[in-house]
Amino acid sequence: MKRRNFIFDIFSIGLLSSITSKLRPNNLNIYPMVRSISTWKTTEANLMAGSLLEKGVDALSAAVSGVAIEEENPKNSTVGYGGAPDRSGIVTLDACVMNHMGDCGSVIAVENIINVARLAKDVMEKTPHVMLAGKGAQEFAISEGYKREDLLTQKSKEDWKKWLESEDYKPIINIENHDTIGMLCLDKNNNISGACTTSGLAYKMKGRVGDSPIIGSGLFIDNKIGGAVATGLGEEVVKTVGSFLVVELMRQGKSPQEACEAAVKRIVKSNSQKDKFQVAYIAINKNGEVGSYSIEPGFTYMDYYNGENKEVKTDSAFS
Amino acid sequence: MKRRNFIFDIFSIGLLSSITSKLRPNNLNIYPMVRSISTWKTTEANLMAGSLLEKGVDALSAAVSGVAIEEENPKNSTVGYGGAPDRSGIVTLDACVMNHMGDCGSVIAVENIINVARLAKDVMEKTPHVMLAGKGAQEFAISEGYKREDLLTQKSKEDWKKWLESEDYKPIINIENHDTIGMLCLDKNNNISGACTTSGLAYKMKGRVGDSPIIGSGLFIDNKIGGAVATGLGEEVVKTVGSFLVVELMRQGKSPQEACEAAVKRIVKSNSQKDKFQVAYIAINKNGEVGSYSIEPGFTYMDYYNGENKEVKTDSAFS
Repeated sequence: MKRRNFIFDIFSIGLLSSITSKLRPNNLNIYPMVRSISTWKTTEANLMAGSLLEKGVDALSAAVSGVAIEEENPKNSTVGYGGAPDRSGIVTLDACVMNHMGDCGSVIAVENIINVARLAKDVMEKTPHVMLAGKGAQEFAISEGYKREDLLTQKSKEDWKKWLESEDYKPIINIENHDTIGMLCLDKNNNISGACTTSGLAYKMKGRVGDSPIIGSGLFIDNKIGGAVATGLGEEVVKTVGSFLVVELMRQGKSPQEACEAAVKRIVKSNSQKDKFQVAYIAINKNGEVGSYSIEPGFTYMDYYNGENKEVKTDSAFS
Repeated sequence: MKRRNFIFDIFSIGLLSSITSKLRPNNLNIYPMVRSISTWKTTEANLMAGSLLEKGVDALSAAVSGVAIEEENPKNSTVGYGGAPDRSGIVTLDACVMNHMGDCGSVIAVENIINVARLAKDVMEKTPHVMLAGKGAQEFAISEGYKREDLLTQKSKEDWKKWLESEDYKPIINIENHDTIGMLCLDKNNNISGACTTSGLAYKMKGRVGDSPIIGSGLFIDNKIGGAVATGLGEEVVKTVGSFLVVELMRQGKSPQEACEAAVKRIVKSNSQKDKFQVAYIAINKNGEVGSYSIEPGFTYMDYYNGENKEVKTDSAFS
């Protein structure tokens, strides 16, 4: 092909796609599109976020309101109210948020507060800090009007007492098809934000913190590029700073899918995987394209897009 | 130049440099070399680490023993014993370590324990976890035989009481030419490890955590590439996951110096710097080459190399 023809072809393809994308209002590149993705089968949480985004709510508020549904759900044993306690029987929660401005907030090892993702947003917006831990985070919550709640349910207390009989302490892969909830939202202004919330490993050592409240590990957003969130065995995510890595790989030109795969492979490569564990990433870029990958099979995520809220199965490094 | 000559020249340059490097025993690429660098004028701490490395001690042990000198120094108001308390008068310490295997440990908001970098190493080596926060970290320390200590000195108590009169709360740039201590060591086996330890912002909100205990922000090591450590206003480091970013930039081919500069510029770019603050990085790569850069002038670091322990001034983005 001669240079002139080549340029003409490029131009005509560009023109054509710009015309067709205007004809197809659901095309990925059409603005304003909204999309919300969240780890595991968090159907209602993701539907809530998606619906808020459709109404024009900003990405961060949508994400925080979305994950709040799981935080308040007593049947979810890995997040918020009803989350599994540490081995001393105390529920400690971790969460973080990050918005399209690159601002972020995080709370670590918080007792007696249910909506810790919202608390992380308050740390971001109402303090000069990014992270608050333990009693300090709880005192800040109370000063902001949060209610002090007992996070143990009858069921989670019974499960813990049963666990005390054996004290068997192993991470469980795809625990009840639930784990840390991470959510990424793209709003009508084409801004990306995210939230991550968890009660951490069931029957963890007192004070144990995983990746979920750690900016760069559990969650990272760069609004020029995209966002990523992690779930699974936090220790392995922290060692490879997983979510930041996914975003950096997208910055280098990888698709969200390719970036999630490369980030998982960095863990698998550095680990013989003799003791099986799960780590999964989901990611979204500025065009609203999404991707996901996990180490072990069984990971699914929710995808709200075009008014539909679907559960999506993810490919994995091992089968 | 023809292809054949070009290849010949490349070959002869390679041969020449391999001969000259054998003649110059202090050449960077000669094994075994050791090097230790640490943030601020931490002369004795860095000399301790360098001397241990010369004796064949591994990089992680050298770093932990090095920073312990500043943790135990009552005159250093930003680390360990004598570190400034939070606004309620309680000293809470943060630290992390990472070794050449990619393993890491971290402690957050620990009260009454002086050597928190060593405690982070114990979390890494003796628990299945990476991070322990608050009371849980303290209980683990006591169970490992650490002594419970009062971290307030007469001086730090008086300073805090004086501060209570005004309650002026601004980060101070280059506070007393000291701040978080981060140290990176390269040992005789050409392995890189690091440690980071701090009492955090003086008179911080209760529970405030900065970048220092956060793997990826305060510290990151990839033994195939190099390591980096941060100091300064932690909130800004966390937002850009600074130390991991420096290592990723070195992975892409940048020198330690170029990587530190690019990481600082990512903060400066995203911040109008109306309110002045300091962030500085130091980095080392697998060849033992080092680099450093800061936002504001006034940052120095210690460099132990070839039996000499020197203070080095760093270039900065602003002057």
